Amino acid sequence: MKREIYLETTPLNEAIEKWMQRLEKDGALKPFAGEKIPVKDSLGRITAEPVIAKISSPFYHSSAMDGYAVRYVDTFGASETTPQKLKLKTQAVYVDTGDPMPDGFNAVVMIEDVNVVKAESREQGAETDEYIEIIEAATPWQNVRVIGEDIVATELILPENHKIRPVDIGAMLAGGHVEINVRKRPKVVIIPTGTEIVEPGTELKKGDIIEFNSRVLSGLVSEWGGEPVRFRIVPDNFEQLKAAILEAHEMGDMVVVNAGASAGSEDFTSSAIGELGEVLIHGVNIKPGKPVILGIVKGKSVLGIPGYPVSAYITFNLFAKPVIYKWQGREVEEPEKFKAVLSRQVASSLGQEEFLRVKLGRVGEKLIATPVSRGAGVLMSLVRADGFVRIPSMSEGIGAGTEVDVEPLRTKDEIENTIVCIGSHDNALDLLANALKKKYPKLSLSSAHVGSMGGLIALKKGEAHIAGTHLLDEDSGEYNVTFIKKLLPEKKVMLVNLVYREQGLLVQKGNPKNIKGFKDLAREDIMFINRQSGAGTRLLTDKHLKESGMNPKNIKGYDREEFTHMGVASAVLTGIADTGLAILASARALGLDFIPVAKERYDIAIPAEFYETEMIQNLLKIIREADEFKEMVVNLGGYDVSDMGRVM
Amino acid sequence: MKREIYLETTPLNEAIEKWMQRLEKDGALKPFAGEKIPVKDSLGRITAEPVIAKISSPFYHSSAMDGYAVRYVDTFGASETTPQKLKLKTQAVYVDTGDPMPDGFNAVVMIEDVNVVKAESREQGAETDEYIEIIEAATPWQNVRVIGEDIVATELILPENHKIRPVDIGAMLAGGHVEINVRKRPKVVIIPTGTEIVEPGTELKKGDIIEFNSRVLSGLVSEWGGEPVRFRIVPDNFEQLKAAILEAHEMGDMVVVNAGASAGSEDFTSSAIGELGEVLIHGVNIKPGKPVILGIVKGKSVLGIPGYPVSAYITFNLFAKPVIYKWQGREVEEPEKFKAVLSRQVASSLGQEEFLRVKLGRVGEKLIATPVSRGAGVLMSLVRADGFVRIPSMSEGIGAGTEVDVEPLRTKDEIENTIVCIGSHDNALDLLANALKKKYPKLSLSSAHVGSMGGLIALKKGEAHIAGTHLLDEDSGEYNVTFIKKLLPEKKVMLVNLVYREQGLLVQKGNPKNIKGFKDLAREDIMFINRQSGAGTRLLTDKHLKESGMNPKNIKGYDREEFTHMGVASAVLTGIADTGLAILASARALGLDFIPVAKERYDIAIPAEFYETEMIQNLLKIIREADEFKEMVVNLGGYDVSDMGRVM
Repeated sequence: MKREIYLETTPLNEAIEKWMQRLEKDGALKPFAGEKIPVKDSLGRITAEPVIAKISSPFYHSSAMDGYAVRYVDTFGASETTPQKLKLKTQAVYVDTGDPMPDGFNAVVMIEDVNVVKAESREQGAETDEYIEIIEAATPWQNVRVIGEDIVATELILPENHKIRPVDIGAMLAGGHVEINVRKRPKVVIIPTGTEIVEPGTELKKGDIIEFNSRVLSGLVSEWGGEPVRFRIVPDNFEQLKAAILEAHEMGDMVVVNAGASAGSEDFTSSAIGELGEVLIHGVNIKPGKPVILGIVKGKSVLGIPGYPVSAYITFNLFAKPVIYKWQGREVEEPEKFKAVLSRQVASSLGQEEFLRVKLGRVGEKLIATPVSRGAGVLMSLVRADGFVRIPSMSEGIGAGTEVDVEPLRTKDEIENTIVCIGSHDNALDLLANALKKKYPKLSLSSAHVGSMGGLIALKKGEAHIAGTHLLDEDSGEYNVTFIKKLLPEKKVMLVNLVYREQGLLVQKGNPKNIKGFKDLAREDIMFINRQSGAGTRLLTDKHLKESGMNPKNIKGYDREEFTHMGVASAVLTGIADTGLAILASARALGLDFIPVAKERYDIAIPAEFYETEMIQNLLKIIREADEFKEMVVNLGGYDVSDMGRVM
Repeated sequence: MKREIYLETTPLNEAIEKWMQRLEKDGALKPFAGEKIPVKDSLGRITAEPVIAKISSPFYHSSAMDGYAVRYVDTFGASETTPQKLKLKTQAVYVDTGDPMPDGFNAVVMIEDVNVVKAESREQGAETDEYIEIIEAATPWQNVRVIGEDIVATELILPENHKIRPVDIGAMLAGGHVEINVRKRPKVVIIPTGTEIVEPGTELKKGDIIEFNSRVLSGLVSEWGGEPVRFRIVPDNFEQLKAAILEAHEMGDMVVVNAGASAGSEDFTSSAIGELGEVLIHGVNIKPGKPVILGIVKGKSVLGIPGYPVSAYITFNLFAKPVIYKWQGREVEEPEKFKAVLSRQVASSLGQEEFLRVKLGRVGEKLIATPVSRGAGVLMSLVRADGFVRIPSMSEGIGAGTEVDVEPLRTKDEIENTIVCIGSHDNALDLLANALKKKYPKLSLSSAHVGSMGGLIALKKGEAHIAGTHLLDEDSGEYNVTFIKKLLPEKKVMLVNLVYREQGLLVQKGNPKNIKGFKDLAREDIMFINRQSGAGTRLLTDKHLKESGMNPKNIKGYDREEFTHMGVASAVLTGIADTGLAILASARALGLDFIPVAKERYDIAIPAEFYETEMIQNLLKIIREADEFKEMVVNLGGYDVSDMGRVM
């Protein structure tokens, strides 16, 4: 095994073309043979041959109404003035909807248009003497479902390669089919590899990595109509990996090795595939997903999918999905793209096609795309994303305000029902998002954390419906109002209180460095972690430093910025910093100690044009009326909810 | 049981409101409790509580790259001219991507940026003396995935009422969950009723009706996230039906009785529900679907769904779907409607909201909606439909060319890839549709049968891509060309031959009325069935009558029109008529005898503006190159394919 350090990467389009063409040439993209299954169990399967009606439906003339079957010739001359009498049993026979027409009868008179008369001159019980009266002549075959009205024998019910829907099941059964031929499900064997990989639920020790990629890939295989098989975890051992690939190769139609796709010292996947068969491509110039391996072993595709979850998701979609579709006689549908406006500038490396994850929200007329984390290891960026923006390899980035095409991950309806919240971060927003989804399943709250000031600017630019803000005016001692007047003079904005909350210095459990307050930040042995400028918490820090007469230049770490309270808490927990200013809830969440500094007001700013919308009114209902929500916020710790929902 | 003849119907919106409000009031719309299931099996399920991260991911600092872990302070001063040497093991430790950072180390230098040097002055094998050289100082925590980079413990991973996707499974596992609480699947018990109802696959006798509605409804329940239970078939017996409802009531969350919902003599459903509980609504003014029953028995919804399959489908969607969604904490998504132009006039009854099924196709700039069969019993109208147009109850119909809103049954992509064929019917078109789907799974051929002339008019109006036509000019003896020149003088149209085919008189097996040719149509005992005017076959009939010097007025049934060859064949088979002119293939399909009359040319007319499109070129490839298709056409009988694909 030669150690490769630099990957020669192939441009994406070239890679896809080379991969698909090679499989095509090898005959490895042919639709799978069919298997017979009961029609009733065929929902979602793909027809492997045309389904032709064996019988007509209905297969005999039947009544389309409840009424009386008649011979239309017997009804000639009937009118309101000269009702026609028809003898029951011989000239008129009662039929329910669906009943076969008696032989020789060729029209049905609806029950509503019939008068049943008992012959008075005879004794009761002599049924044969009853008759009906009708006042309009029948036309031939009126109210009769003739043979083949729905389906004519020999008619094409479903073409080959059709995905079966509930109505199709009905039509096939009606057309005389009990079993049909559907494409076999492609079996995809997914091998998780890595000595450090452990099953979920294992007692964790440092260095362990929970194996979850195989479950994501399995889910995708299921969604694409295939049958995922999850192989046992294989350690980083070349011979064991080769043996596993061969075993999986026997079991399935496609083998997916995850991971070992980059060029590190323990990445055996490429060599293993190379020894067993052929590596067609190793490395595609996309981000994330670069180290993907496309290989062929004895006629079957063997993929080396990168270990970072976002890379795994993207490369599996690009290279496995079209193959799995082809095997079922299907083509991947082009997703309908949305046009959106990028809310902030994004730089990108030249020569790499980047798959940028974005959140989407409709604010007024505009659909706004806000980038989320770009890390290949940040699965939550996919969980939170509403879509992908592709940044072409020839681009160095996209400017703010540019119109972009978004490949959606959610439906338009979901996106239209998303409240876009940009601004300061608070843990109560997470709870609010959950409470909203619980009470109004159609609505979502999407939060982007750019600090209070950033939130107000987003409102100004029409990129958010609401902004969380806690900006203290040092002079007036008032919250938010001054800033809104200054930043948004042209807008009418409502301020609704969410909480009062405690801000304080977070320190490690037990306060090992004995930090007592802002004064300690000047100490040589203290590393501080700051919030980004524009954050309300940053203003609070600066106010306290000023009051204490301290110079920021003397504070180690003052220029290192985090974007959320949890980011600060995480930095303190992990020892990246000794302390930072954040809310009590974040300290609670990570088990840190907390030195209270101030109680501040956290409001939600809502421009008047959105205030009256149903979406926002529903959000306010939760803030104002949901005791369960209030209680959960209080349980976070450090919150005062006495003004929750009040217009300030 | 009182026999009700006339149903008092409720307007649709009122019915939905009354139904949902009553269930809400009864507390019967509350989301179901959760059940614990393994995260790995949770695809497509709905969260029953918020999923909060139990652990951070990663839960220790780990290397984000293959390279060397270092202490960043040790790297100060490194530059190209003054490379910094770091001793292996003590100052630099090799790490693979994902490896935990050694204690005290706080940056990773990528392997690409490192020069590994062996100490030359010492003996080989003395590993401790190896070192690395770097030429750039490291920044704190560079190339390190810090704790919580992806997920921070206590963070909201998924809100309540969220439908779980593959990526969500990954995030939950990464956040320390192995089991989660998801909403129990609503169990819907579907009771097929009717003495005449038989299981699919049963040897059929006249009067039997194959039971398939329950399978359609089951499929819908599955698609909506519920668990369908199909009850045994219950005969039309009041006591048995009541017992079945009670048994089903025990088993499930919702009971659906199909059918017995109209007011016929054997329709016990309403009475049964009424005796066991309460009938809230019986009859809604929609078409199809009027006789639906909405009932409540001991707190659970019991629906009486009409027997006609289209009625069943529509009413189940309207009244069961929102309930099943609510139980899972979800709302039915508003389908995104398409704007389309109605291709022909549709009359509708005042006072009834009609659900019109339409085919859709993009022809040039316009999306064209063409109504398909409106019968409540025509399930194939749903199989073939691309969407619904709702005609309001206050409307008497919609004019041709009107813009309408269509609730789609297929995706936009599928509709955009549909070739709209309007014109004369030929059985070979069915085979062509199948061959197209087989070779190009993305493409569909949608045929509407309005006769040759109607097809050319559709081309003129820009409502079709292609038209099947076989119009014989009596004077020149030429096919199609004269008519196209006359009807479409402004358009350049290509004529591509599909087949030559035999037309003839269809008669019942054994020709019981001894029909020998057109002369016999004047006989008193012969009932003819004609094609609609504008059909090529109608022209052929008229030509032959003229040649024989016969007066149409003397032909019984001349004014009764069918729209397709199979319609004519079906009329003959069923005895509605004794004979009619149609192609041999339709006689073969239904086992009729055939008296040859003429061989005619059947072409496909394609306006030049569509001829070069990829869609049409692919269709032509099949016509020209697919031997399999040719062979299937020949097997239909009566076809000459010698010019298939030739431009005429």
